[in-house]
Amino acid sequence: MFKRVAIVGVGFMGGSFSLAVKSRLGCSTFGMDINPEAIKRGKELGVIDEGSTQMLALRDFEPDLVVLAVPVGAFEQVARGLKEVLDEKVLITDLGSVKGRLVYMMEDFFGGYFVGGHPIAGTEKSGVQYSNPELFKNKRVVLTPTQRTDRLALQKVKFMWERLDAFVEFMDPFVHDVVFGAVSHLPHAVAFALMDAMEKLSKKTNIDLFLYPGGGFKDFTRIAASDPVMWRDIFLENRENLLWAIEEFIQSLEKLKGLIENEKKEELIEYLQRAREHRLRID
Amino acid sequence: MFKRVAIVGVGFMGGSFSLAVKSRLGCSTFGMDINPEAIKRGKELGVIDEGSTQMLALRDFEPDLVVLAVPVGAFEQVARGLKEVLDEKVLITDLGSVKGRLVYMMEDFFGGYFVGGHPIAGTEKSGVQYSNPELFKNKRVVLTPTQRTDRLALQKVKFMWERLDAFVEFMDPFVHDVVFGAVSHLPHAVAFALMDAMEKLSKKTNIDLFLYPGGGFKDFTRIAASDPVMWRDIFLENRENLLWAIEEFIQSLEKLKGLIENEKKEELIEYLQRAREHRLRID
Repeated sequence: MFKRVAIVGVGFMGGSFSLAVKSRLGCSTFGMDINPEAIKRGKELGVIDEGSTQMLALRDFEPDLVVLAVPVGAFEQVARGLKEVLDEKVLITDLGSVKGRLVYMMEDFFGGYFVGGHPIAGTEKSGVQYSNPELFKNKRVVLTPTQRTDRLALQKVKFMWERLDAFVEFMDPFVHDVVFGAVSHLPHAVAFALMDAMEKLSKKTNIDLFLYPGGGFKDFTRIAASDPVMWRDIFLENRENLLWAIEEFIQSLEKLKGLIENEKKEELIEYLQRAREHRLRID
Repeated sequence: MFKRVAIVGVGFMGGSFSLAVKSRLGCSTFGMDINPEAIKRGKELGVIDEGSTQMLALRDFEPDLVVLAVPVGAFEQVARGLKEVLDEKVLITDLGSVKGRLVYMMEDFFGGYFVGGHPIAGTEKSGVQYSNPELFKNKRVVLTPTQRTDRLALQKVKFMWERLDAFVEFMDPFVHDVVFGAVSHLPHAVAFALMDAMEKLSKKTNIDLFLYPGGGFKDFTRIAASDPVMWRDIFLENRENLLWAIEEFIQSLEKLKGLIENEKKEELIEYLQRAREHRLRID
């Protein structure tokens, strides 16, 4: 198992991962972040053992695992930096919400020693101060091996997640992006757009609608408080799948709108009933 | 204060109200429902003291307060029935999510003795078996008096809600519908439509997307499990405001889609940042 883990990106996800491997696997951790404040806070809070804003410092730490926990838009630049300071055959994984071509790009740098990973765990909170060592417990982690992935590397990453009490499943990198484009990226886009609509409606009605968060609005839009940079990168990186999902969703909403507009009582009940049954199936 | 309370519609809302006034105000309650099963279960569970499927039975109960807890589409028919069996000057209120013209319609039947009410409390669960006597505690209740509303009746209803630890506020019936069309009815429409989109995407991708409820999807769509008849009636009754809100929302989503499509990095961050700030303001 891993002993020395470097975490690139000391935010909520990277911090939670650091706490988890420290407390559950006894690892030493090293945090890398371009923001010195994140490193300082991470060390003060005991989230990371050591840290630096300089990639070069990783050389002395000699990690046996490096985990990318930065927004996906920064992966290429980070990979370029890591490539210069890491020994070959150091294992690399990530916590990113988009896989697809990113996985193959990472393989261009690290060959079979990159294992794509996506823990299905998170929160709308951001920042190392919210780090939670139990974040991954009983959660799913999707790993996205390819033909090229080193089998031992894959087994080690899988075993590590299982020791953090996560459930590991494998998925093709591109299939992953179709699935999460629909079930995660679309709902986030919708939540952000709802806030935009509410702002416009507040102006047009001259009523501050944000003062009336009852009736489902509050829980429904919690994810709109998520980190903007992280989500911009996810939206852009998974653009194609997300745009498709948005288009399908708009058509679904237009259909519902038509049923309401034309007072189609029976079809409206059927539409809502079917939606309800699907939702109940999730629980 | 009220001693004998009749509740028309023995579901989750009516049941919760019955339990609340029984336990907190010592009222006797009488449940009316067209479904004999609801009456039977309500009595067995001690949610209502007595009950009947026959409106005529209310005459013997001699209520001093009648509360409508049926879907808003049934209000007119219920009002017609109540008018035949109730003494004049019996106070009537309701728990409905739409007010507007419904309030004036109810006044045509009951004059100033109807007080429109909307407790901002609920759940995606439906059925009398989920009734919760604490449902209204620390929740807002919007009352929608008009010029015609009897002032003493209004004070009595307000005082009753306050004794159930709810916060009462007054709002014009039509303003109420603009506000809740945006902050409650729109999110529900969106959640139902998301389920429809997910069903279509599941078919088109040949992947059962409902098996991947992580990443915000589950909490985000909880309200799509809400009662179809109740929501059909709300959507149809508040049609005009809801259609407007849906239109504004689709435009917001199209705007976001455009920013993603054209990779407008800066404007995308601004959009998400502004959404985030609005959302944080709610908490």
